[in-house]
Amino acid sequence: MLSSLSREACDSLDQRDALASLRSAFRLPPGLIYLDGNSLGPLTNEAAQRVTAALDREWGLDLVASWNSHGWMDAPDRIGARIARLVGASPEAVVVADSTTVNIFKLVVAWMHGSGSRCRIVTELGNFPTDLYVLQGVAELLGPAVELQAVARKDVLDAMDSSTSLLVLTHVHYKTAEMYDLDAVTALAHARGAAVLWDLSHSVGAVPVDLQRARADLAVGCTYKFLNGGPGAPAFLYVRPDLTERVGPGIAGWLGHEAPFDFIDEYRAAAGVRRHRVGTPGILSLSALDGSLSAFDDVDMAALRTKSVALTDMFIELVESRCNSHGLTLITPRAPQCRGSHVSFAHPRAYSIVQALAARGVVGDFRAPDIMRFGIAPLYTRFVDIWDAAERLHAVLQTQAWQEPQFNERKAVT
Amino acid sequence: MLSSLSREACDSLDQRDALASLRSAFRLPPGLIYLDGNSLGPLTNEAAQRVTAALDREWGLDLVASWNSHGWMDAPDRIGARIARLVGASPEAVVVADSTTVNIFKLVVAWMHGSGSRCRIVTELGNFPTDLYVLQGVAELLGPAVELQAVARKDVLDAMDSSTSLLVLTHVHYKTAEMYDLDAVTALAHARGAAVLWDLSHSVGAVPVDLQRARADLAVGCTYKFLNGGPGAPAFLYVRPDLTERVGPGIAGWLGHEAPFDFIDEYRAAAGVRRHRVGTPGILSLSALDGSLSAFDDVDMAALRTKSVALTDMFIELVESRCNSHGLTLITPRAPQCRGSHVSFAHPRAYSIVQALAARGVVGDFRAPDIMRFGIAPLYTRFVDIWDAAERLHAVLQTQAWQEPQFNERKAVT
Repeated sequence: MLSSLSREACDSLDQRDALASLRSAFRLPPGLIYLDGNSLGPLTNEAAQRVTAALDREWGLDLVASWNSHGWMDAPDRIGARIARLVGASPEAVVVADSTTVNIFKLVVAWMHGSGSRCRIVTELGNFPTDLYVLQGVAELLGPAVELQAVARKDVLDAMDSSTSLLVLTHVHYKTAEMYDLDAVTALAHARGAAVLWDLSHSVGAVPVDLQRARADLAVGCTYKFLNGGPGAPAFLYVRPDLTERVGPGIAGWLGHEAPFDFIDEYRAAAGVRRHRVGTPGILSLSALDGSLSAFDDVDMAALRTKSVALTDMFIELVESRCNSHGLTLITPRAPQCRGSHVSFAHPRAYSIVQALAARGVVGDFRAPDIMRFGIAPLYTRFVDIWDAAERLHAVLQTQAWQEPQFNERKAVT
Repeated sequence: MLSSLSREACDSLDQRDALASLRSAFRLPPGLIYLDGNSLGPLTNEAAQRVTAALDREWGLDLVASWNSHGWMDAPDRIGARIARLVGASPEAVVVADSTTVNIFKLVVAWMHGSGSRCRIVTELGNFPTDLYVLQGVAELLGPAVELQAVARKDVLDAMDSSTSLLVLTHVHYKTAEMYDLDAVTALAHARGAAVLWDLSHSVGAVPVDLQRARADLAVGCTYKFLNGGPGAPAFLYVRPDLTERVGPGIAGWLGHEAPFDFIDEYRAAAGVRRHRVGTPGILSLSALDGSLSAFDDVDMAALRTKSVALTDMFIELVESRCNSHGLTLITPRAPQCRGSHVSFAHPRAYSIVQALAARGVVGDFRAPDIMRFGIAPLYTRFVDIWDAAERLHAVLQTQAWQEPQFNERKAVT
């Protein structure tokens, strides 16, 4: 099918794309093909406007009164409710606070504190490191009441037994884009008597998620990837509404109190997920996130997913058809239902190839030790971008441009 | 002495004030007397410029490359080093991360995890609620290995015994502005075999602090009060350099790993305070903080303190001389060496008085149940502001303006 594909045909697909106009919300640098929105989503016009307003008018002019007059105090709940729609949660079940890492910690310690004789947490080796590190830290802090069992991906489901209290998994794998069947895995965990904490960092905003339908117990997610909330934007967390009383705050802070402005000495957890707000919210970062979420207003996540699958399918086929003599190995599942919205290839010189490609206006990223990763965000990525990216990748490999010395100096990229 | 004081004399003090030019760094709304910088410091020109640059040029144009090219990844350390000077710490001993609440949690659990048979934490009833709530949460989470002893202020020092591992105190009290002698209290705790965690939220940027001289063990602080870092700006934490190996990360996250970009499965804590970075830093909020700290460049903290004492002395004397028939009670210590940089009065109608005063262009704040609090930031507060604020407070009381119904509707203010 793709043998007949041309740049003109891609252009024609873009013309007919019902989601094409969403791209106009973004301030993408002219000429750049940005395939790293799964690491840091780009700036939207509305995010820029919201930050400017928060800076100049709210903080600058109205100062401390803005906590009430501009709704700063409720921002974690209000913005949480906007994210809730994207993950199939009721509006009051999601709150924005802290980093993804801190939120995992909060939910895990809160869950394990009430888990009785079931002391085990099961997770996957090769999960995003912060998930693993948090769990190792919790096991050390609360041991022997908590025992961590990190096993290979293929063994995760079998590892659950009558001692398992919590399964901690990332819905879409940060390297390979492998995607778990959220409904089926949740149901299986429940059948074994365990709860599931889903890390949605690499799925939210690109892959439809329905936490309610799955009866998922707990979830967290990053907002600066496919949600485009800005560098280090605060993360979100979800607790299934019937579990909120079961799940203490993890970290008891003044904004998680039922009456923070009474300034009383004794902690009493707020109802619902509000108890997980903990400290004073970072308004500038929250304002950017609030603005960025407007790009999703009225967007049908199923339509977004259809476009994501079409783009990723095309990228895989174009790259493989052009570059298969150059030692690239696809590590992302070919079956669309088994992958998220990024595509990764392994190559021994992945780092240098990614640098050489960036010098040609195509930004992907490198993940140690040998992976080049391309995030394909359906809100703003065009079919012609996919065509051009594949062409330029081919050119880099064909000309061995990556051998140029300036592409070999290793730098950290998040 | 003050009987001869006049607005003209205040104006003359401002003319002779060597620190007067620092006010030009701030974007204060014209005509407003802002005495709430101990709750939310005002916007500086440089903070606004830094956020705009981070937004438009860094995030907007350079996107993910900014983690390296604009130093985002090192921002928590770099900005921590700028704060270090203001608290008498070596540059590498301070890092910016998370909220004050989360930082207290991190340091307390890390400290108590290695505290052996000493299981007690001593703190003060009436401490800022988040400090108390965190400690209650830690005691519940780690009990019986951790026991919390919250006692009246007058009993704090006597409460320490051979079971005490950690004393958690706020240097300057958020309501009364009472200030502990940081050196003496630290020395006393050490003599009892306990460590001290100082919460510097209401002192940093207004009161000289010398953590090294005091040999203070641990410290945290808020950056959006006297440091003017912006609403909900990330907090800082300090660990005495010889203790960093003793103090695990509390929450083990990917950015606290010694090699985050190796993406390995096993956590290994970074050296020093870097292990406390935890998650991805919020760059927009950090940029504001970075800009705001420039207002302190070349500022001598001793000179700032001298001005703070002069301003607070004057405010106390002017208010008391004018308003003492109106039922105000000073709850801030009269002795300058015993107080920080805010002044508080108790009054049964404090809430309404604060509202009525705000309507007359003087912003202070209310703290339940009956306290009006006036933050006096020496970087931008003038002697004429103190004169005018006292005059207007007197007018509000004299005319009973606070009885107007619009000043009685209670709203939360942080």
